[in-house]
Amino acid sequence: MTSQVGRKWVYLFREGSTNMRDLLGGKGVGLVEMSAAELPVPPGFTITTEACNAYNPSGQEFPPGMWDQTMEALREVERKTGKSFGDPANPLLVSVRSGAKVSMPGMMDSILNLGLNADAVQGIARISGNERFAQDSYRRFIQMFGRIVLDISGNAFEEILEEAKQRVSASSDTDLTAAHLKEVVRQFLSLVEKETGTEFPQDPLEQFRLAIKAVFASWNGKRAVDYRNFYGIAHDLGTAVNVVAMVFGNMGDDSGSGVAFTRDPATGTPRLYGEYLVNAQGEDVVAGTRTPASIAEMARIMPEQYKELLQIAERLESHYRDAQDMEFTIERGKLYMLQTRAAKRTAQASVKIAVDMANEGLITREEALQRVEPLQINHLLLPRFDEEAKKRATELGNLLTQGLNASPGAASGKAIFDADRAEALGLQGESIILVRPETSPDDVHGMLHAKGILTARGGATSHAAVVARGLGKPCVAGAEALTVEPEAHRCTVDGRVINEGDEISIDGATGEIFVGRVATIEPRLSEERDLTTLLGWADEVRRLGVWANADDPVAAQRALDFGAEGIGLCRTEHMFFEKERLPWMRQMIMAAAQATRLEQELQALEKEAAAGDRSKELEQRLADQGALVAGSEDVKRFREALARLLQFQVQDFKAILGIMTGKPVIIRLLDPPLHEFLPRYEDLLVEVTTLRLKGDDPATLAERENLLRMVEEMREQNPMLGLRGCRLGILYGAINQMQARAIFTAACELVKDGSDPHPEIMVPLVGHANELRLVRQELEQVAQDVQQELGIRVPYKIGTMIELPRAALTADEIASHAQFFSFGTNDLTQTTFGISRDDAEEKFLLKYVELGILPENPFQVLDREGVGKLIKTAVELGRRTNPDLEIGICGEHGGDPSSIEFCNQIDLDYVSSSPFRVPVARLAAAQAVLTSHQLGLRFADV
Amino acid sequence: MTSQVGRKWVYLFREGSTNMRDLLGGKGVGLVEMSAAELPVPPGFTITTEACNAYNPSGQEFPPGMWDQTMEALREVERKTGKSFGDPANPLLVSVRSGAKVSMPGMMDSILNLGLNADAVQGIARISGNERFAQDSYRRFIQMFGRIVLDISGNAFEEILEEAKQRVSASSDTDLTAAHLKEVVRQFLSLVEKETGTEFPQDPLEQFRLAIKAVFASWNGKRAVDYRNFYGIAHDLGTAVNVVAMVFGNMGDDSGSGVAFTRDPATGTPRLYGEYLVNAQGEDVVAGTRTPASIAEMARIMPEQYKELLQIAERLESHYRDAQDMEFTIERGKLYMLQTRAAKRTAQASVKIAVDMANEGLITREEALQRVEPLQINHLLLPRFDEEAKKRATELGNLLTQGLNASPGAASGKAIFDADRAEALGLQGESIILVRPETSPDDVHGMLHAKGILTARGGATSHAAVVARGLGKPCVAGAEALTVEPEAHRCTVDGRVINEGDEISIDGATGEIFVGRVATIEPRLSEERDLTTLLGWADEVRRLGVWANADDPVAAQRALDFGAEGIGLCRTEHMFFEKERLPWMRQMIMAAAQATRLEQELQALEKEAAAGDRSKELEQRLADQGALVAGSEDVKRFREALARLLQFQVQDFKAILGIMTGKPVIIRLLDPPLHEFLPRYEDLLVEVTTLRLKGDDPATLAERENLLRMVEEMREQNPMLGLRGCRLGILYGAINQMQARAIFTAACELVKDGSDPHPEIMVPLVGHANELRLVRQELEQVAQDVQQELGIRVPYKIGTMIELPRAALTADEIASHAQFFSFGTNDLTQTTFGISRDDAEEKFLLKYVELGILPENPFQVLDREGVGKLIKTAVELGRRTNPDLEIGICGEHGGDPSSIEFCNQIDLDYVSSSPFRVPVARLAAAQAVLTSHQLGLRFADV
Repeated sequence: MTSQVGRKWVYLFREGSTNMRDLLGGKGVGLVEMSAAELPVPPGFTITTEACNAYNPSGQEFPPGMWDQTMEALREVERKTGKSFGDPANPLLVSVRSGAKVSMPGMMDSILNLGLNADAVQGIARISGNERFAQDSYRRFIQMFGRIVLDISGNAFEEILEEAKQRVSASSDTDLTAAHLKEVVRQFLSLVEKETGTEFPQDPLEQFRLAIKAVFASWNGKRAVDYRNFYGIAHDLGTAVNVVAMVFGNMGDDSGSGVAFTRDPATGTPRLYGEYLVNAQGEDVVAGTRTPASIAEMARIMPEQYKELLQIAERLESHYRDAQDMEFTIERGKLYMLQTRAAKRTAQASVKIAVDMANEGLITREEALQRVEPLQINHLLLPRFDEEAKKRATELGNLLTQGLNASPGAASGKAIFDADRAEALGLQGESIILVRPETSPDDVHGMLHAKGILTARGGATSHAAVVARGLGKPCVAGAEALTVEPEAHRCTVDGRVINEGDEISIDGATGEIFVGRVATIEPRLSEERDLTTLLGWADEVRRLGVWANADDPVAAQRALDFGAEGIGLCRTEHMFFEKERLPWMRQMIMAAAQATRLEQELQALEKEAAAGDRSKELEQRLADQGALVAGSEDVKRFREALARLLQFQVQDFKAILGIMTGKPVIIRLLDPPLHEFLPRYEDLLVEVTTLRLKGDDPATLAERENLLRMVEEMREQNPMLGLRGCRLGILYGAINQMQARAIFTAACELVKDGSDPHPEIMVPLVGHANELRLVRQELEQVAQDVQQELGIRVPYKIGTMIELPRAALTADEIASHAQFFSFGTNDLTQTTFGISRDDAEEKFLLKYVELGILPENPFQVLDREGVGKLIKTAVELGRRTNPDLEIGICGEHGGDPSSIEFCNQIDLDYVSSSPFRVPVARLAAAQAVLTSHQLGLRFADV
Repeated sequence: MTSQVGRKWVYLFREGSTNMRDLLGGKGVGLVEMSAAELPVPPGFTITTEACNAYNPSGQEFPPGMWDQTMEALREVERKTGKSFGDPANPLLVSVRSGAKVSMPGMMDSILNLGLNADAVQGIARISGNERFAQDSYRRFIQMFGRIVLDISGNAFEEILEEAKQRVSASSDTDLTAAHLKEVVRQFLSLVEKETGTEFPQDPLEQFRLAIKAVFASWNGKRAVDYRNFYGIAHDLGTAVNVVAMVFGNMGDDSGSGVAFTRDPATGTPRLYGEYLVNAQGEDVVAGTRTPASIAEMARIMPEQYKELLQIAERLESHYRDAQDMEFTIERGKLYMLQTRAAKRTAQASVKIAVDMANEGLITREEALQRVEPLQINHLLLPRFDEEAKKRATELGNLLTQGLNASPGAASGKAIFDADRAEALGLQGESIILVRPETSPDDVHGMLHAKGILTARGGATSHAAVVARGLGKPCVAGAEALTVEPEAHRCTVDGRVINEGDEISIDGATGEIFVGRVATIEPRLSEERDLTTLLGWADEVRRLGVWANADDPVAAQRALDFGAEGIGLCRTEHMFFEKERLPWMRQMIMAAAQATRLEQELQALEKEAAAGDRSKELEQRLADQGALVAGSEDVKRFREALARLLQFQVQDFKAILGIMTGKPVIIRLLDPPLHEFLPRYEDLLVEVTTLRLKGDDPATLAERENLLRMVEEMREQNPMLGLRGCRLGILYGAINQMQARAIFTAACELVKDGSDPHPEIMVPLVGHANELRLVRQELEQVAQDVQQELGIRVPYKIGTMIELPRAALTADEIASHAQFFSFGTNDLTQTTFGISRDDAEEKFLLKYVELGILPENPFQVLDREGVGKLIKTAVELGRRTNPDLEIGICGEHGGDPSSIEFCNQIDLDYVSSSPFRVPVARLAAAQAVLTSHQLGLRFADV
């Protein structure tokens, strides 16, 4: 660490500058900038984040010189205000607030009215001529200081205040007189003495010193540390301390406090929006004890000040070139600005504000693109409650309560209070909302099978919230009005009882909870005008293609509607699970091994004969084997099933290729282990055991035993690493041939109908170039045969999925047999980490993220250090062999903005995401380009 | 291809030179060299491998000029011999033999006496004055030519010959007179006409042309192609054709043929060894129709020629500096050398010859080290049949028959004739020999559970042989005297019946098959004098350390005896499966999750309190949680079980660290998924289903249901990629702490006893540096605690296994927390390939090797292209961060010579193999150094 001696630890607002965000924190810089613009900001100063970073590791001692500099700055504030800190006659009061570079809940917020004591309260009363105001300020100060600095429960203070109100039947704080408040102050002071064993600190400098220390310490409070861990914020940033001369909104009806947004943060509508409370300090506006008026109301009550605020709002928005969230206070008619910052906003508002501002010329289109968090727009396209239906439900009194909007999306279902039951019913296809006091890893299996999660306790970083976001399910957390009694299978809100099985609805975007079912709507992109505009701009900027993963015509159409430029992954096996197909699939599988063996033996003999080793004996063996094949029941059943599956697949591919006419469609050959299509081994085992014990149905028993034996032979220790992917096609060539025939037949028929299909066949799970070489030979043969038979040429490609480390490491060899690569990052992440997603997520992966071992779930955000290194290697090696190689990514990461940025960096051709994520990917791909340009500039600057 | 015009296709022996092995093949160069040394070699010439390579792809046409050059060479041979090809008066006869660069079964071997026809046979009779000899030569020629060139079944000829012998009651071919043979010839000729539809070719040039074509074509015969695929021999080498003037060993009692070795190929004893047959051609010596005499006998019968042979043998050995295998013929008292090549030899002979030759000064010690195939010496140390016991069994008539020595080792067990039954009994712990006509993939599950495999059909590359070698199990293949009747559950040899369950013994090193059990012995390295000497030389040369994998004291002692310099892998979990420990392990597991949760919650609260966030409410929660932990049955049972396991582990580690005093011992922390220690899910499911149906034991049912539920929760889709390795220790810190405490307690106690333990703790399955950082912190804490408690300091290291691709890719970060790396190449191969060994070997991996997709089983021979690339990356990254990093390999590849060569190349510190493989590794490590030196020289030469 560099020397601390002689360092500047304290900056007056006029001394700071815009580029000091690291040093002064967000709040501090806001005050500096408003001061510089000569907006009405009370005088004050900021103690730097460096002071915090020097303080905490050094046994909690202020760094040398800091206190002296603080005193000097305080004297400057005294000069400016004409008041004096600690002077009972004309006391200067200040607010002390933390303020890190990034806004962070969990740290100390504010202590107002610091500097008050028994003497100063008299001075204030005298000067203001308002005894009530003086006592009110003092009681507020004791309460805040007691709770935040002295660690006394806030409830204890609230109880005293509540009692006082009850004693005089006051409905609100403002109904309490100066005398009442004086009594409250007395009780507060004795509460402090009882709890801490010493008197409430009366020395203002001692109060000040303790408050600064509390701010510094709050940087390392548990919640703050957890929050930083969760959001990956560095622990060495530190917090600044802002000290501002108090102005008073609670000096009477010509005073007040408010919060205002330059644009509506819910809808984005460009008008001043906010709340205002007469005769109140800032804390009252947010505390909810009194209901604030809308900012429009203020125009009526205080037209002068409203006009001034409006002008300031415009100036701030122009200056910051973004919608602002401002705090202000009016003291006896004079407006003071206390804070300004970028406004938090809904997804809808975010898009509208960006587009409007670009259209207004306030920002460029490129900036507009960077103003919207790509994942936010996903919310715009998620199924959500119909606003009308929500309104009706609210009018009917069905809005139960509101919690934290912990994970977006809307869901309705039966309230279930334990995870086991949620799982059981979920598996039966019921829509379930899992309701718990809070969740733990023991609940995850239930969460997996619920449509949504609701908890009474816990915040945005609680287990429920983290897991739900991970699972992409709606979650409302910390609904504190809710009392959940799992043992009694019910929950209550204000005496209203929800029993197990009652339907409820939760809105993860707003935190609202309704009784009963609320209708949902599926938004259409075309109706989202602003979003359409923004995405249009994105398309002009981005370099990456955006394709979608779609297994059926419905998904393909949706992908197209959302702007997909191709299908990056069509998983053919999903089609085999359909009811009318599964029996044929099973018949095919049951006969495959035996039929293939017989046919391969025949082929081997034919090859031997063709190679010239022909002898009498060989002729005989050929004849024998031919007869064996011809007479085999297995061969017959195998061929019959394949023929049926071929028909189904031709229909499937015709539909999808037809929808995507003119665009590439990557069809992956059969991938999962075949036993996935058979009944579960465990179910058969129970069935057979039961049949054996009963002993009354030998025919069924024999049949089921046979099936059990077959499934037993096929099941694997680690099916993820077993007989699947291209390994299947290599062992059972007829399956690949059938699929290829279906693809080319469909394509040829479409061409005949005037369509323009572009099938690309993807060979999965290749680990060695020889696998692809072999499979490709077979596929090319079928392509040639079908095209010849139908007399039609079809443009097509054959390529592979890179989803094994070895494929990435030997991509140069593989590329000599491939026309395209598509990174299957799900499997590649599994093998690179040696983690089975199915097993790990519940059992240890979330725990790993919680412990900070992994920065995030690598199945959501691509691990650049490990998996990313492999991908980069594969791209370099692959292009070295085959410069025309088409390269994309089709794992779930294809819809994740950080992963998309990486794909852009390493120069992939496209990303393929789920249809709903296509708009996200379009925006993220544009941002990736803009970011890389900025980085480029920065590098050039160096 | 370069132009063929004007190329030299044919070399007379005197035109060739030693460095033309590629062009002339091994046999050709041997003849060239013997000619150059003026040894008595009949005149002849070689048609080059290039001619073969030009012939086959070009529609089987001789390349331009080849035939003319052949005729010219033939004229030269005519000049030398004074005979004339096709001249009935004085016909030149020749032998035509294939001869590739490497010796290769499956190709055409020899056609003798070519040039004979109806006229020439008269001439030969006249010149030799031996009508019988002439007819005998003719009948041999027709038979060989018919079988090899005209593709007529050999049996058909044998039957005619057999009938002829029976007609005159001849016991041997030599009992047939000229007249008898003339009749045989007549029948042979009409057989040929019948089978081919045309007359036997009478034109000698036509015979010659067809024979050359047959040799060329045999290069692409199925067996030859399969063989090359199997042994990874390039398909573009081609075969040469050797044409040699015939000399006749069948001209009477002053003639004969023989095979001789310069040293005994079985024992290595330096004396002329071989077989000799009077009045016979070479084929008779090996055909087994007449029993040859030993070469010592020859000294008595033909002392002159024997002396000459002895001198030639010495000259050849000196020239080649290696033991030779020679073919010779004596024609009317004159000795001719027909072939010389390096002698194939047993493992024992190989070692003895190498050591003797070095001691004799014939070769250097470095050369001696390179003369022995490392895997061969493994055979010397495998359990093998006691020679005395084998002799007794043979004397008792228990030697049943002999087959091919397809996979080394010795095994006794019950003969079982189908794979299902072999598996079932094998699982019950029975020793099984699986006996099949031949094996197919359907038999592999039986082979897995058999001690040895015996087949009636198939050669060294048959399915049975390949799989058995892959599994490291003894196999005797192609025992043709054996008739296996699987349906009848028996096999027979010459009417002798072996029924299912009868004990048999097979010697995979010799191919012998015995009835009954033959005693085995476990060889001691110290008694193998020559091997000890050779390994001593190896130790002087090698750079790599050789350590061993050993889980218990017996294995550790064996490793030490075999020369291991440390333990590279001690798998602690193997100790938990012991009978007295398993119940404690299970108790620990069943309580772990709940106990850990309770304790961790308490710790979290304590940490929060320590961080200064202390409040009344927190105090209360602390007290509540403390009471919960104190009262928990799970916590009690968890702690109790851990305490017992600690005691066991202290004993284990004391024993192993004690044996290895002064040497490093790497102990791996618990690795397998915990459910491996619990009863199988499937067994419990059947049990519970049964109990439910019976309904008469509700108490047991409840208990088993509970266990079933627990096992169900713990089981995983892909346990290989699940909750195992360091993930366990991170979730259940108490297990790591127990193991670390056991290790350090054992080490401290040993130090107290004057021993010098060097424990190194290995953290398994690390994928992210943070995992190792976290676990190491805990381990270091325990190390400090235990050493402090016991007042003793122990040298130790903490490191990790690199067994996941991500670990290799981020080795720089991991190395900052590791003192050593050990490559777990088994798991690394599994994850890099995405192949689960358990599932794949049987289901598709062997098939992959068979199809040539993979050059070899990557679980036996390290895949340098993929896995090797990762290892190399990890070594470079790891050493960059931590130059002192100790790096080794502990997968099964640590005992494979090719893999060891790779480890030497990339500069690892040591390899660790199974104890039996330690001598192999010592030799392979020395060879790796020598090879790299040679490569270095070669590079310098360039």
